Amino acid sequence: MATGRNVSVYSPLQTSRLDHDLPLPSVLKAPFDIVDGPPSSAAGNPDEIAKLFPNMFGQPSAKAVPSASPKNTGPVKIGVVLSGGQAPGGHNVICGIFDHLHQKQDGSKIYGFMGGPAGIMNCKYTELTSEFVHAYRNQGGFDMIRSGRDKIETPEQFKKAEETVTKLDLDGLVVIGGDDSNTNACLLAENFRQKNLKTKVIGCPKTIDGDLKCKEVPVSFGFDTACKIYAEMIGNVMTDARSTGKYYHFVRLMGRAASHITLECALQTHPNISIIGEEVASQKQTLRNVTDYITDVICKRAKTGYNYGVILIPEGLIDFIPEVQKLIAELNEILAHDVIDEAGLWKSKLNEQSKILFDFLPQAIQEQLLLERDPHGNVQVAKIETEKMLISMVETELEKRKLAGVYEGHFKGQSHFFGYEGRCGMPTNFDASYCYALGYAAAALLCSGKTGLISSVANLAAPVEDWTVGGTALTSLMDVERRHGKFKPVIKKAMVELDGAPFSKFASLREDWALNNRYISPGPIQFVGPESYAINHTLLLELGA
Amino acid sequence: MATGRNVSVYSPLQTSRLDHDLPLPSVLKAPFDIVDGPPSSAAGNPDEIAKLFPNMFGQPSAKAVPSASPKNTGPVKIGVVLSGGQAPGGHNVICGIFDHLHQKQDGSKIYGFMGGPAGIMNCKYTELTSEFVHAYRNQGGFDMIRSGRDKIETPEQFKKAEETVTKLDLDGLVVIGGDDSNTNACLLAENFRQKNLKTKVIGCPKTIDGDLKCKEVPVSFGFDTACKIYAEMIGNVMTDARSTGKYYHFVRLMGRAASHITLECALQTHPNISIIGEEVASQKQTLRNVTDYITDVICKRAKTGYNYGVILIPEGLIDFIPEVQKLIAELNEILAHDVIDEAGLWKSKLNEQSKILFDFLPQAIQEQLLLERDPHGNVQVAKIETEKMLISMVETELEKRKLAGVYEGHFKGQSHFFGYEGRCGMPTNFDASYCYALGYAAAALLCSGKTGLISSVANLAAPVEDWTVGGTALTSLMDVERRHGKFKPVIKKAMVELDGAPFSKFASLREDWALNNRYISPGPIQFVGPESYAINHTLLLELGA
Repeated sequence: MATGRNVSVYSPLQTSRLDHDLPLPSVLKAPFDIVDGPPSSAAGNPDEIAKLFPNMFGQPSAKAVPSASPKNTGPVKIGVVLSGGQAPGGHNVICGIFDHLHQKQDGSKIYGFMGGPAGIMNCKYTELTSEFVHAYRNQGGFDMIRSGRDKIETPEQFKKAEETVTKLDLDGLVVIGGDDSNTNACLLAENFRQKNLKTKVIGCPKTIDGDLKCKEVPVSFGFDTACKIYAEMIGNVMTDARSTGKYYHFVRLMGRAASHITLECALQTHPNISIIGEEVASQKQTLRNVTDYITDVICKRAKTGYNYGVILIPEGLIDFIPEVQKLIAELNEILAHDVIDEAGLWKSKLNEQSKILFDFLPQAIQEQLLLERDPHGNVQVAKIETEKMLISMVETELEKRKLAGVYEGHFKGQSHFFGYEGRCGMPTNFDASYCYALGYAAAALLCSGKTGLISSVANLAAPVEDWTVGGTALTSLMDVERRHGKFKPVIKKAMVELDGAPFSKFASLREDWALNNRYISPGPIQFVGPESYAINHTLLLELGA
Repeated sequence: MATGRNVSVYSPLQTSRLDHDLPLPSVLKAPFDIVDGPPSSAAGNPDEIAKLFPNMFGQPSAKAVPSASPKNTGPVKIGVVLSGGQAPGGHNVICGIFDHLHQKQDGSKIYGFMGGPAGIMNCKYTELTSEFVHAYRNQGGFDMIRSGRDKIETPEQFKKAEETVTKLDLDGLVVIGGDDSNTNACLLAENFRQKNLKTKVIGCPKTIDGDLKCKEVPVSFGFDTACKIYAEMIGNVMTDARSTGKYYHFVRLMGRAASHITLECALQTHPNISIIGEEVASQKQTLRNVTDYITDVICKRAKTGYNYGVILIPEGLIDFIPEVQKLIAELNEILAHDVIDEAGLWKSKLNEQSKILFDFLPQAIQEQLLLERDPHGNVQVAKIETEKMLISMVETELEKRKLAGVYEGHFKGQSHFFGYEGRCGMPTNFDASYCYALGYAAAALLCSGKTGLISSVANLAAPVEDWTVGGTALTSLMDVERRHGKFKPVIKKAMVELDGAPFSKFASLREDWALNNRYISPGPIQFVGPESYAINHTLLLELGA
């Protein structure tokens, strides 16, 4: 079931965005060919990657270059699938694929698999027509063909995928997804090649978290829009904090594995405190260290008359703190085998450090840890509202300091979680153009017979016409992890680099931001005017621009 | 302490907004005079209002009209104060006052009282210079002079205010605030007149809640911007819901007393369910009625394959449900005098209906009611996360229906609270212009010797040049309430009218919205382009446009 939109339910802005002109890199506007670059290796353990991907490993990168007599393969049949969480711009990737085929390979067919990889396995698809695709141009969300989190992993699942691509006679498949989905795309490419199927597979880098990137793929799409949406809200909350002068806003931001979103939002808005998970992990900080750091800043600010502020916290903070991981592992053990007695005798089963940590936690969090379990009986770490936990711990610590006479301010915490609001916004002009180029390139790669590559658009600090376009061997992004005694291929998540330009800039400024108020309010994303073409700080700094 | 901004910490959009041209109604652009309209009465109990405001009662409304030879009083000294919660556009009211005095009464002085009415009582102020004011033009927040919630009520407090206005030799004072603050403004006006002080007082209608309005004051400023910010977020969450197909988003929206914000956001975005507090109260609905209504829609949607949706809830919902008010009153009694025993024997002190309601509440809410008290020992109703409470109650009800075999869907609730994000956004073009005109008018009224009026700008569905400008007697908005055996003047909050055009439109469409998906995503507020001048639905419908 497609969710085909009815234009009668468009807002004026949605309608005007339908007609927003999507610029293409110059190389894609004139006749071009895809040419090979140098052969590739792997991000780690090339020998193991070579064993896992005998057909894909070592493939050269590919690049679009102007051509006087470009090859044309004639009409093709291409499938496309959206995999995993939404990211603004996904529809434009599909528009890019569509427009390339429509313009250069007339008579081609495009099938959208419905609801993610499950749509491939169950052969649930819709044929994408010009009118249908147009209704989603520059619109947020993944609702054109919806998404899903299923994986194609087992031999049976691969078999189902083979049946589908054979039945539809697919020349190619574009997988739009994050690190896992792109690993999966490469496994599919390897499998199809091994079975002598003609279907080629190209990946596209999607995730608002920004943790799928490398030299050739400078950023995943959606990161730019999501961060700008969160930064708008943070800027508003900052202005509120400064206007009332009486609240500390603790803002938890999406981004479980890496803290790129928190770092980018910090660079855009200059909050008083931003906790970066990678730094917490690298310094082996404890929850008490984090609490003390926040409390120290609050005390210093109180001395200069500021009893308000804004604090950013990455969603995945707890996962970065080793002692918390240890406590949770022990709790899972105890909950599985023992009775939690009211008197607290069960606590003797915790090791000393974990016991201290447990007692340090606010009561509500203690209860959550003991009571809320997932279907496997494990503690539900993801459900812990870290921002509320920190407010409570900071409050307790401030009360102690007040009694000790070293703090005389007043503290009121307000908690926020900015997550779902950012995944489905209308893509910024940057994400709209970037996604369109990614899709256009993916189709071009497929038409030139490439497989096992990820669509790569680079030189992004330059105007769109100067962007470079090509593909990068997915195996070159891979390493292996040992799981259940077997090597499994993984695209390593790109974490915040503590010696990288974005973190360095943040680190050099944060003391000033902590004590003085350097708040910046980016305001709502604009689609017209000079501001509308600005790129996020992380990308600009990483590109050295 | 002023929080004077440093332009080095402006975002590009903030900077560009500084130079956004503010249009004025035609009548204010050419020479004009303020002329009297017909005399006024009161919204209720005119005899009591006349007794409470012997000098102000019955004052005529005022209107700006073109004049060949306008009076000019020469330089004046004017104070301005921001009172209560922030609303986008407050800075522009001050800009309007400033520009009027600067352009028409050269040599005038303006003082901004710091931190709300307390600034008047403590004579804390800053003189507003051109450069200082300019830095806040079209910017969100109240941080130019900050706000506060103190009231000027007791004879001592009035005395302090008199001292301040005398010391500063003020000709006038502009009070920018909500219903309470404008009532207070009128009391000040009455008091100053009675004491033969020359200081006149003019109010300005501010509140994002939209519940301060009447024929002459069609809308309070900030409502337009706040609703558009919330609607952006709701639209994004809707697209998310439709893309994943697995979450019910329960969105609580600011607005304790009236449900205008929820209604406006519903008209902008077409959610599946919107609870309007005024309707709940008028139909004397119970919490179970509300839960059943939501559950019924979810069950119907599941039958057509939709296991997702978006539900809007006004912050003040609980206050609209009589049985909840009763339970809380009983709990406050019990908590003050009795011990809450673990076995639950204390529950026998509740009356039967309250006991049933208490047992119907989710455990977390039960605990919150019993454990969290304000400094007076009362239950903290404001802290109840209504959206989480409803998720939990709906979940329980759906489980029952599943067991009974009448529901086969799956339900996952996601809770949101959109509040602080909306109070301090950059004002929309509408709020920016409306506030500028309100401020300009307030200064003009003061200069023409008016007092006890609220600045009134109307004909708002027309282009700015055709807006009408004047003042309305604050006493004409008033009624009395009996408190502690005395009559107290109040400006009655404007509630959602169930026979008004906005609610009627909503009511005629909501069944369609409930079962079909008519989601609209308004997207981020734009400051350039045709969409940027759109006015909110509530105002347009109320104006019959």
